[in-house]
Amino acid sequence: MSKKLKIAVIGGGSSYTPELVEGFIRYHNELPVQELWLVDIEPGLHKLNIVGELAKRMIAASGLPIEVRLTTNRRDAIKGADFISTQMRVGMLAARAQDESIPLKYGVIGQETTGPGGMMKGLRTIPVLLDICRDIEELAPNAWLLNFTNPAGMVTEAITRHSTVRSIGLCNAPIGMMKWLTSQYQVSPNRVYAEFVGLNHLHWITRIEVDGQDKLTELLDNRQEYAAVNVSHQDWDGDFLRSLRALPSYYLKYFYMTPAMLEDQIQAMQGEGSRAEVVKKVEEELFQLYSDPHLQEKPKQLEQRGGAYYSEAAVNLMRSLYNGTGDVQTLNVPNRGIIDFLPDEACIEVNCLVTANGPLPIQLTTIPQHIQGLIHAVKTYEQLTIEAAITGDRDIALQAMVHHPLVPSVDIAKALLEEMLEANRPYLPQFFQKEMPAEDKALV
Amino acid sequence: MSKKLKIAVIGGGSSYTPELVEGFIRYHNELPVQELWLVDIEPGLHKLNIVGELAKRMIAASGLPIEVRLTTNRRDAIKGADFISTQMRVGMLAARAQDESIPLKYGVIGQETTGPGGMMKGLRTIPVLLDICRDIEELAPNAWLLNFTNPAGMVTEAITRHSTVRSIGLCNAPIGMMKWLTSQYQVSPNRVYAEFVGLNHLHWITRIEVDGQDKLTELLDNRQEYAAVNVSHQDWDGDFLRSLRALPSYYLKYFYMTPAMLEDQIQAMQGEGSRAEVVKKVEEELFQLYSDPHLQEKPKQLEQRGGAYYSEAAVNLMRSLYNGTGDVQTLNVPNRGIIDFLPDEACIEVNCLVTANGPLPIQLTTIPQHIQGLIHAVKTYEQLTIEAAITGDRDIALQAMVHHPLVPSVDIAKALLEEMLEANRPYLPQFFQKEMPAEDKALV
Amino acid sequence: MSKKLKIAVIGGGSSYTPELVEGFIRYHNELPVQELWLVDIEPGLHKLNIVGELAKRMIAASGLPIEVRLTTNRRDAIKGADFISTQMRVGMLAARAQDESIPLKYGVIGQETTGPGGMMKGLRTIPVLLDICRDIEELAPNAWLLNFTNPAGMVTEAITRHSTVRSIGLCNAPIGMMKWLTSQYQVSPNRVYAEFVGLNHLHWITRIEVDGQDKLTELLDNRQEYAAVNVSHQDWDGDFLRSLRALPSYYLKYFYMTPAMLEDQIQAMQGEGSRAEVVKKVEEELFQLYSDPHLQEKPKQLEQRGGAYYSEAAVNLMRSLYNGTGDVQTLNVPNRGIIDFLPDEACIEVNCLVTANGPLPIQLTTIPQHIQGLIHAVKTYEQLTIEAAITGDRDIALQAMVHHPLVPSVDIAKALLEEMLEANRPYLPQFFQKEMPAEDKALV
Amino acid sequence: MSKKLKIAVIGGGSSYTPELVEGFIRYHNELPVQELWLVDIEPGLHKLNIVGELAKRMIAASGLPIEVRLTTNRRDAIKGADFISTQMRVGMLAARAQDESIPLKYGVIGQETTGPGGMMKGLRTIPVLLDICRDIEELAPNAWLLNFTNPAGMVTEAITRHSTVRSIGLCNAPIGMMKWLTSQYQVSPNRVYAEFVGLNHLHWITRIEVDGQDKLTELLDNRQEYAAVNVSHQDWDGDFLRSLRALPSYYLKYFYMTPAMLEDQIQAMQGEGSRAEVVKKVEEELFQLYSDPHLQEKPKQLEQRGGAYYSEAAVNLMRSLYNGTGDVQTLNVPNRGIIDFLPDEACIEVNCLVTANGPLPIQLTTIPQHIQGLIHAVKTYEQLTIEAAITGDRDIALQAMVHHPLVPSVDIAKALLEEMLEANRPYLPQFFQKEMPAEDKALV
Repeated sequence: MSKKLKIAVIGGGSSYTPELVEGFIRYHNELPVQELWLVDIEPGLHKLNIVGELAKRMIAASGLPIEVRLTTNRRDAIKGADFISTQMRVGMLAARAQDESIPLKYGVIGQETTGPGGMMKGLRTIPVLLDICRDIEELAPNAWLLNFTNPAGMVTEAITRHSTVRSIGLCNAPIGMMKWLTSQYQVSPNRVYAEFVGLNHLHWITRIEVDGQDKLTELLDNRQEYAAVNVSHQDWDGDFLRSLRALPSYYLKYFYMTPAMLEDQIQAMQGEGSRAEVVKKVEEELFQLYSDPHLQEKPKQLEQRGGAYYSEAAVNLMRSLYNGTGDVQTLNVPNRGIIDFLPDEACIEVNCLVTANGPLPIQLTTIPQHIQGLIHAVKTYEQLTIEAAITGDRDIALQAMVHHPLVPSVDIAKALLEEMLEANRPYLPQFFQKEMPAEDKALV
Repeated sequence: MSKKLKIAVIGGGSSYTPELVEGFIRYHNELPVQELWLVDIEPGLHKLNIVGELAKRMIAASGLPIEVRLTTNRRDAIKGADFISTQMRVGMLAARAQDESIPLKYGVIGQETTGPGGMMKGLRTIPVLLDICRDIEELAPNAWLLNFTNPAGMVTEAITRHSTVRSIGLCNAPIGMMKWLTSQYQVSPNRVYAEFVGLNHLHWITRIEVDGQDKLTELLDNRQEYAAVNVSHQDWDGDFLRSLRALPSYYLKYFYMTPAMLEDQIQAMQGEGSRAEVVKKVEEELFQLYSDPHLQEKPKQLEQRGGAYYSEAAVNLMRSLYNGTGDVQTLNVPNRGIIDFLPDEACIEVNCLVTANGPLPIQLTTIPQHIQGLIHAVKTYEQLTIEAAITGDRDIALQAMVHHPLVPSVDIAKALLEEMLEANRPYLPQFFQKEMPAEDKALV
Repeated sequence: MSKKLKIAVIGGGSSYTPELVEGFIRYHNELPVQELWLVDIEPGLHKLNIVGELAKRMIAASGLPIEVRLTTNRRDAIKGADFISTQMRVGMLAARAQDESIPLKYGVIGQETTGPGGMMKGLRTIPVLLDICRDIEELAPNAWLLNFTNPAGMVTEAITRHSTVRSIGLCNAPIGMMKWLTSQYQVSPNRVYAEFVGLNHLHWITRIEVDGQDKLTELLDNRQEYAAVNVSHQDWDGDFLRSLRALPSYYLKYFYMTPAMLEDQIQAMQGEGSRAEVVKKVEEELFQLYSDPHLQEKPKQLEQRGGAYYSEAAVNLMRSLYNGTGDVQTLNVPNRGIIDFLPDEACIEVNCLVTANGPLPIQLTTIPQHIQGLIHAVKTYEQLTIEAAITGDRDIALQAMVHHPLVPSVDIAKALLEEMLEANRPYLPQFFQKEMPAEDKALV
Repeated sequence: MSKKLKIAVIGGGSSYTPELVEGFIRYHNELPVQELWLVDIEPGLHKLNIVGELAKRMIAASGLPIEVRLTTNRRDAIKGADFISTQMRVGMLAARAQDESIPLKYGVIGQETTGPGGMMKGLRTIPVLLDICRDIEELAPNAWLLNFTNPAGMVTEAITRHSTVRSIGLCNAPIGMMKWLTSQYQVSPNRVYAEFVGLNHLHWITRIEVDGQDKLTELLDNRQEYAAVNVSHQDWDGDFLRSLRALPSYYLKYFYMTPAMLEDQIQAMQGEGSRAEVVKKVEEELFQLYSDPHLQEKPKQLEQRGGAYYSEAAVNLMRSLYNGTGDVQTLNVPNRGIIDFLPDEACIEVNCLVTANGPLPIQLTTIPQHIQGLIHAVKTYEQLTIEAAITGDRDIALQAMVHHPLVPSVDIAKALLEEMLEANRPYLPQFFQKEMPAEDKALV
């Protein structure tokens, strides 16, 4: 239990890193981190240095024996690591801006995880993550990979299907919901049981109990809800919520209120620009703050960034894995019979008991009839997207796009896919290499 | 084998009946019908008499010992019957006209089987059919019920879930497809194997072989298709078809080409009126013809009615059940493991081996990944609709409407449901009785 | 959380009761028992009084405000209870003696839970328990029923299939195993994760980790094992254990070492008599002790009785349900997808997370290929026995006996069944009433 | 349809070959065989020549344009073949004699397909068959492999799991049963529907209808049964049969009447010797007959050999595959959902519709509760045996032997396995090579 731990953060130059660092400091007695490696790609070196120096200042202020290492050599960071976390954005915010804006031209929701935007992000990201997994398989085969990279469910499923790395998908939405519940009822988390059913960014909470007493009914009746700052605040219809008998994730508004959410996005685009552009400005301000050589703690402003609790989710999970605490966390894991109509390998987001050898999903009390079709429809799209990401097969990509519940027709799917693939050409070699003339291919 | 058979046709006053009668005449040596009971409700008596007299003339001309009986007493017709077929329309064409026109006001496909129209037809029809089943359970427990009543998949599932009657759902689409294939390739049906996967009005053909040779690829490449007269002729996109690797039912155009199909319906409505109105005119002309006392055969014009091969499908199935021929027919039957992600009781439309004790579904070679979500989404809606039809529970009805893949949002679902329930009030006592003041209820 | 609790112990005159009482005293701060009802049948009144008086003395000595009530009126005890536990023996030790001795005459293992003995116990017990459940449904519909009555898996499954009572099956074997492990490794229970796979009295432990480190391999290599006092101490074969890659329950010796275990039973029968006879003597001595008006604590000798940890298991479970502690316990619960080849309703013995609204089974990491057939074979026998117990159908009983893996042939099964049914005639009205002459039946 | 066919018979020197030849002659108009290759191993060359010459004489007498080719070069025979059938016996009758006699020493059933004998046959045969499959994958990838080689279920499953060859397992027991039924009721086969449920040599018939009328009940009541000449004639118990509600395969007597069948085998061994020795004599007499240069038809005596209808089963299946007849045959195929509790890849023996692209299993009407455990127990043993055959892993082999329902204990399993592996050492290189000293291995 006294083993000193090595942590590697891939995409360590992210603006979220100070949150993680804060977590490692706070919980050092339960998670004895000795080396913290922040790794990023060459173009992110500038940001890596800013964040890295802040991390060093924070740790120095804490007086803890944690060594911070900054590198662009991924393999050095991975080698012998105990925990690896990923938070990356292939194509950076520029690609996200396209993910969000192109679909709007076709009257389709533009969103970086849900809808065609998330599909493109998946196509760009999955090959890169699998490449990282090849390194982990070789250099840190016993490490736990905590994947925050969106679309987290799809990326995690790609890893469990195509790699031997021990990986777990994480999202801040469930922990945010739990925080909201404990604050609503002024209780400690262990007195709340909330049953999550579904997929990443597509879950419903079908049971909420505080000290064993049902609270779901009153929450639905009062139309109370938890929502993140980055999702539009459309109100749920009261009759719908009551008849749903489950609290839907705020991401489900894209499916349940499609026209209004689309209108909202079009308005926002005409106003403050895409979410990517908003985030870009926030990030610039954050890095401005991070650069201050007197700053030696996580600045308050980070909390408005949209990814609240990311760090808490990650550190909690590492602590539970390290100590085998047997507590319950909502994680993205292979299905293996928990949702009876999905394949064993399908990645789902459900409550798990966390043992030292990984999370064990807990049986669901109920999988409401009415949500089964939508879960399966989105999972179908996800699995086709994973296959397309790996094979670069346009036929499969077309089927994924056509069968996405937010895409209204084959015609739109086809045109939208063409434009989005083209716009992402630099990040999708799997789709374009084969079209190269033979002589060019030799040069690749 | 020499047993004389009693047949009861519920909804016997339908314009389709002469087709059935023609079938009974043609195949009398294999299906020795002795009594043919045509039964209809009081308001349909006039049409029943016209059709019934034509049936009598047709049989007289054939010289066969078949007795035709006309009645409005359902129980007399059912008692001791060997085969019962249903072809009914609760609310008649007026209700269908509403099913088709109201959704258009909300920008939603109006169709009598697919979409909200089909949902309303299900809500009206299921209780009536289950009521008939109560009579069959009592008066003809060993009879086979051949259900043609749309939405046939949903109605058949309601019967298998809530009655002990031996029932089979039938549709003319699969037999039409087989006819088209045998005519394309100029072969007899037993040289063609076409694998149907899916639900009623939501199937794909994933294997087509003539003499064991694959023909699916060339059919998809040539974008050749079979379509009924009553579905708009939008062409399939070639790339989509090829990548689908399956021939979609023409009903799938409502899902794959939603905006174009909707536009088409709106145009048609402004032109010739709803399909219900078109059918109404056709029917009036048919009954004009049927009334001719010199007519003693099925008139050619019936074939343009849209339900080609209904009779052939029915008589084929009766012959196979009666003789235990062990031939393959595409039928609506309980799933019981054939489509692995659907419940055992879910009614599916697949190939079956027909034995004397009923159809046995045949294992599917493949259930393509890309169509699984849509199948499950529609089945989810169907099962909620069945439950709503039986309980009259508006919450469940709302969930059914919200989760129908063609309904774009909760707002629209709610408003549309309200208007459609109200429009169907006379046929939906299960939804309205409970609202009655207590004193009124006593009178019901 | 400050609710005062009512507990009903059915079979309260059992020699185990002082253990339970001790538990209620020790954990009163976490489980505020206010009323403890001990209920037994008329013939057990003498023992009930002895045990009941001891219980009163124990509580008096503790100074806690727990009221002990003794009754033969089951309904008074059940009414409004929060927890009900059952520990009964229909036919008492005399019936057990038959269960153990008759099979030996046929060369078959005689055992009160495994084998034909357990089958007879099930046939006698299930109708009685279901009768109690009728009372609970009426008088304490929200109570938790903790079922210790053997064969606990079969009885619990009968209850979940045929009653709406919230019931959980409990056995002392898993808790005994956990105690043994924590003592072997000198750690607290929360540092051990042991994965139980299987059925009651038919489980394997496929993972044992202490602080996340595998200990299963060394336990198997050292042939270390945990066994109860009431099961013969045959040693496991080392090669077998190692290749099994799981620690088998000591009850599995009946299946894996059948001839030796049989021989052992025959020897014992010729020596000290059946286990029932041994237990009878132990019980007599215990009641002698209990009668001592100076005794006001659980006597040490009770631990040799064979049911160590029963009380601890029961009190642990009540505390966790009451407080919603979310700890892991090994319980008998409906399968619902955990063991993929068994029906949803099959009762299995696996790890569960205990919430205030009941136990939620945790996904199994592995279900070894080699044990699947035996699990299914025994579950098949159990389900047939449950059906036979309820219907009194001899055909089903014969199929149960024939298909029990310890019964070597149809001939033996048939003869053994006949003799055992006859010997149990007073307790099996469901099998014998129908044979009564019509005139007698009228009198029943 | 006018393609000329090439057939390869592996193990062509078998005494069964004349039956096959007779079939090819009789059905030449439906199955236009042009080349018939009989292939055998070097030690079987003498028998191959005798049988081959008889085959040539038979064909000459028929006047058909079939060319018979004899060879010991397997690859020549396989190359471009349309159908390949296997009927081999690795280790020949001497190995079978051991399979049958060694278990008896341990009080265990000795049988060449069921029990430890079948396990050894599987261990010897599976690697050889997979080796042949490697050749087929290369030289005749579109060929159909009809596998008669016992244990046929296990061997076929090994092929479908570990090879891409299109293979089907065949047994003469189902066709024998159908022959017996058609003869009992004097009807043509298409008027009988008999539903087979289970595995090869472990099936039950749960529905028997003639012209749609149930005949199972009367067959069970009359204890009528069909049995092959090579299985001992113990009578079924009437009560058992009736309560079983299914007609058991005669191979099930090994499980249901174990002590009597064992006694029977011991008696026979002391009398006429093992079944292998009896067969050896029959075979010698047959080859005597075959050698007669005047013989140009299949001799009557072949029918007493025990494998009646093998040829008919094979030729029927080839005809149906070639012509895509869509008739129903009972075959060994991958489960894929038909028996819900077995894995998809498990080979089962059930009714199939035979299309030109292979057999499609037909849904089972019922899988009786009482037989599920035994099916799963035997399938567990089979799957372990397949794995042991491929890996040569003694641990897995021990688990297979221990968990075989006919093996009474771990002790016996271990000793029996040791002796049988040793006795089969020349045919089990996978189990023994690894024990060789390193220097010897280099020589292999």
